[in-house]
Amino acid sequence: MSFFNVLDILGTIAFAISGALSAMNRKLDLFGIFIIAFVTSIGGGTIRDVLIGNTPVSWMENTINLYLIGCVTIVAIIFRNKLDYLKKSLFLFDTIGLGVFTIIGVETGIMAGLEPIVSIALGAMTGCFGGVLRDILCNEIPVIFRKEIYATASIAGGVCFMVLYTLNITQNSIYIITTLLIISIRLLVVKYKVSLPSFTVQK
Amino acid sequence: MSFFNVLDILGTIAFAISGALSAMNRKLDLFGIFIIAFVTSIGGGTIRDVLIGNTPVSWMENTINLYLIGCVTIVAIIFRNKLDYLKKSLFLFDTIGLGVFTIIGVETGIMAGLEPIVSIALGAMTGCFGGVLRDILCNEIPVIFRKEIYATASIAGGVCFMVLYTLNITQNSIYIITTLLIISIRLLVVKYKVSLPSFTVQK
Amino acid sequence: MSFFNVLDILGTIAFAISGALSAMNRKLDLFGIFIIAFVTSIGGGTIRDVLIGNTPVSWMENTINLYLIGCVTIVAIIFRNKLDYLKKSLFLFDTIGLGVFTIIGVETGIMAGLEPIVSIALGAMTGCFGGVLRDILCNEIPVIFRKEIYATASIAGGVCFMVLYTLNITQNSIYIITTLLIISIRLLVVKYKVSLPSFTVQK
Repeated sequence: MSFFNVLDILGTIAFAISGALSAMNRKLDLFGIFIIAFVTSIGGGTIRDVLIGNTPVSWMENTINLYLIGCVTIVAIIFRNKLDYLKKSLFLFDTIGLGVFTIIGVETGIMAGLEPIVSIALGAMTGCFGGVLRDILCNEIPVIFRKEIYATASIAGGVCFMVLYTLNITQNSIYIITTLLIISIRLLVVKYKVSLPSFTVQK
Repeated sequence: MSFFNVLDILGTIAFAISGALSAMNRKLDLFGIFIIAFVTSIGGGTIRDVLIGNTPVSWMENTINLYLIGCVTIVAIIFRNKLDYLKKSLFLFDTIGLGVFTIIGVETGIMAGLEPIVSIALGAMTGCFGGVLRDILCNEIPVIFRKEIYATASIAGGVCFMVLYTLNITQNSIYIITTLLIISIRLLVVKYKVSLPSFTVQK
Repeated sequence: MSFFNVLDILGTIAFAISGALSAMNRKLDLFGIFIIAFVTSIGGGTIRDVLIGNTPVSWMENTINLYLIGCVTIVAIIFRNKLDYLKKSLFLFDTIGLGVFTIIGVETGIMAGLEPIVSIALGAMTGCFGGVLRDILCNEIPVIFRKEIYATASIAGGVCFMVLYTLNITQNSIYIITTLLIISIRLLVVKYKVSLPSFTVQK
């Protein structure tokens, strides 16, 4: 198992916990908690696979993640009142997840022979759309459309990946630089409370 | 036409009526009522087909259900104030629909050579996700995430189906036992007002 | 570039602007505005492609539209307070878009050898479901389920297209008649404030 796999697992765990927490905050029942945890964790990759025709989608062929998410959700339910102490670790895991999932999405696009702009879009989808589905199912406007430079970090990472890929740099260097870039953007953004502008239409 | 087809038709009818009723309760217009009826009835199977790559999706190849749903919706609109008298029959039809759709989903997964856990997930999707789409389109948190042992009955049925299938029991016996199990769970749950626990996060 | 392509571009522009406006009205940030503009413009065609298995979906193979939507969105943000003056042109563009997208959807169904009723449904999806996704992402009940004869105009156009197609009329005549029909219905409906009935269920 490579270092990249370890990061992938950390990301999957963080996304599952974020889904389970959202569901508990909305007072969903046990089944709802599991579904939201799954959807948050594998939803982005599923949308990507469906759009490019990579079916049956990944989680059906590689079911180990399902068991992982199931266990994580049980742990998250048991320790639901302790998760606040882990806030910082969870934020870091989530950001790692964003980085890893973005890379997996961009690579999938390149493998499928799609144009760079499409590959970057696939990276952002893989990284961000699990959270979009989570928010839709919880009947909220997706948080990434409202605040935080989250998707923007993913897109910046995707652009960085494509540039480095064109320069023929070794795969491992691309992985590391892209992941570090996404993590740095997220950390800086949260530290300095940067957010994208929104625009008001005068009535 | 087999006995199973008859059950399938009853389920499709019940799901269409439940969709049409939801739409009328939300004061949607005629078009909205039809769309929600269709989505509730064929939405679960459509998501299943898209995820495993079974395209064009089933309702495009087998359009008889579209006409059936259209007619049922018209009848539901005309008799909208009488449907209360049919509440018990509708509940039974809906539960039959859940059972039949679950079985169709699990079988589709087995045919596609997918792992047992994935087949069970496909069964639950086929049975429950039409209702999830209905609730999302009506701007509500899906009811199956909040109360009632609905999806859980479907999952229990899926597990039962897989176990019996492994034991090499005849297809008809599997169908009957699985459907009866799902119906029994639903009836018991509603009678004794059982619901899954939800968990509060202390702030 | 044919006359039809010009209409397609007008439609894409109108849909992108309508998405960007919705997003700004909901106070979404810059990223949210772009995503909603994209989804409104290409969402209907994407759902169509996914359901019939035409993957990778159209916008991945024909990326020119992505750049067009991106530019239109920037212009819409800059001139957001001037768009009111363009209300009538935008309404016309939007209606042209509905007509063109409907035709593209119906034709896609015919090419894929699907039944007429399915082709008409694909036309309505291509024309209307971008707006449905826009409203779901903005956490609203889709406007086309609640008021305005919008989807109905699309369906009428689809039926008209299928009838003319069966009569072996030249492609250009079919395009023009169908588009004119859809535009006329929309104009008449808005002028005379016609709307589909909704039905109340007595409690």
